Amino acid sequence: MTDTAQPTPDDPPRQTLVSGTTRLYGVLGDPVSQVQSPGLLNPVFARLGIDAVLVPVHVSPADLETVVRGLQRVGNVDGLFATVPHKASAALLADRCSTTVEITGSANALRREPDGAWYAENFDGSGFVSGLVQAGHQPKGARVALVGAGGAGSAIAAALLDAGVDRLTITDPDTPRLTALVDRLAAHWPGHVRAAERPPLAHSDIAVNATPLGLRPDDTLPFSPHALPPGAVVADIIMKPRDTRLLRETAALGLQTHHGSHMLTGQIDSYRAFFGLGTPR
Amino acid sequence: MTDTAQPTPDDPPRQTLVSGTTRLYGVLGDPVSQVQSPGLLNPVFARLGIDAVLVPVHVSPADLETVVRGLQRVGNVDGLFATVPHKASAALLADRCSTTVEITGSANALRREPDGAWYAENFDGSGFVSGLVQAGHQPKGARVALVGAGGAGSAIAAALLDAGVDRLTITDPDTPRLTALVDRLAAHWPGHVRAAERPPLAHSDIAVNATPLGLRPDDTLPFSPHALPPGAVVADIIMKPRDTRLLRETAALGLQTHHGSHMLTGQIDSYRAFFGLGTPR
Repeated sequence: MTDTAQPTPDDPPRQTLVSGTTRLYGVLGDPVSQVQSPGLLNPVFARLGIDAVLVPVHVSPADLETVVRGLQRVGNVDGLFATVPHKASAALLADRCSTTVEITGSANALRREPDGAWYAENFDGSGFVSGLVQAGHQPKGARVALVGAGGAGSAIAAALLDAGVDRLTITDPDTPRLTALVDRLAAHWPGHVRAAERPPLAHSDIAVNATPLGLRPDDTLPFSPHALPPGAVVADIIMKPRDTRLLRETAALGLQTHHGSHMLTGQIDSYRAFFGLGTPR
Repeated sequence: MTDTAQPTPDDPPRQTLVSGTTRLYGVLGDPVSQVQSPGLLNPVFARLGIDAVLVPVHVSPADLETVVRGLQRVGNVDGLFATVPHKASAALLADRCSTTVEITGSANALRREPDGAWYAENFDGSGFVSGLVQAGHQPKGARVALVGAGGAGSAIAAALLDAGVDRLTITDPDTPRLTALVDRLAAHWPGHVRAAERPPLAHSDIAVNATPLGLRPDDTLPFSPHALPPGAVVADIIMKPRDTRLLRETAALGLQTHHGSHMLTGQIDSYRAFFGLGTPR
């Protein structure tokens, strides 16, 4: 699937000609121009012979409910993806949801069920862990510092605990949000998760940025990689720019970097299964 | 424009790869799978180098307002098209409208204005008349029987009168709707328009079907072409099937036929100008 999602110059991205019969998927974001999923999934649709298109949907937080309620009434909309800053709100706009969505309070995929209800799932965490494992960074038994307890951070926390990390430390300036998340996680994985004011970088094998810091060139660093031990991995969930300032500084220190794109490419198989989109021809 | 809208086998339809930066247009219909505009306009976008896609939006009359209010809040939606059965309702969902929309009470294109307001226009009538003239059927001075006083019929009536038909007779089983339309038209073009219970086919040069009859194979005929005089033209606004039963029976009688597709191809230049989409490269 990675090959189909990242076409080479010999195999340029294709797009199904959109016609009256085309089924629709939307990705909700604010901003939205940076989203990678349409450019990744539309060539997959074409390759699978699926008459569908994933379009970007730029919507502000204030308008999210109005827009989603409208899109849910569109007969040929089969699914919606939610990205920053809509993942928490999206979870509330579904009729039913998965356990991961319950724990994290965050969704990044909604689909229309056969009975017409909308079901919410969260693939950020499982996609992140798949990407980490595929890149040779084993989370099982690791000590992980996670910065950011928002939508993506919550999902990544649940998936890392599910994958068997030994100790997960989460930081976030929004203390009530952080405490509530850690309480929900500790109920499922007691003894392995805690909140902290600052990430314990000197005693971490993997440090993860799950904040939006790094989207803009003048953003401050989510954390400084200098305190990490030799051999540590710094993972960023920012996809654009590919090399955030955090990852550039990490590389300059001789530490291992893990790009945000791994999280998305790790999710594509999951999306296909979730939306019932079959297998490549 | 006709060439770009109807690609040959040597020049297959292309589609811009939809990405995060793509601007959106939607065509609202119920049903929607038969709409031709995405298949016609998307290759035009590609040819013009415009990063935009026109997608079908299947919405029931009961859900139209919810869906349109949602789509109007989407930051990268620049325009909406309305087709059967939404043209009258669409006119009411704009903040401002053209004179044609005022007269006909019907819109088939809404665009976002620089101030954020939505402006409604109707191209069905002007597109129909352009198509008729391009095919060599001059409406000026003609006697025309128009069947159907709905969205498309109203727009075609106004455009035919504007083009100088000598006598326009309109029929529709919905008498209040018919009377109201004829009154509005007569205020602008007195002495040239009237309502009738049955189309005066024996005394018509052009007969137009502006009803949905013919979309389904088991539909009854909107009118019988047998009573028309030799040399008369029968125009259908149905685009799919291309050869409706009405047009097949007309051809079998040796009369002239005019296909529904002319109305849409006649509109594409108008749409481009309306949405500020520039000229082909």
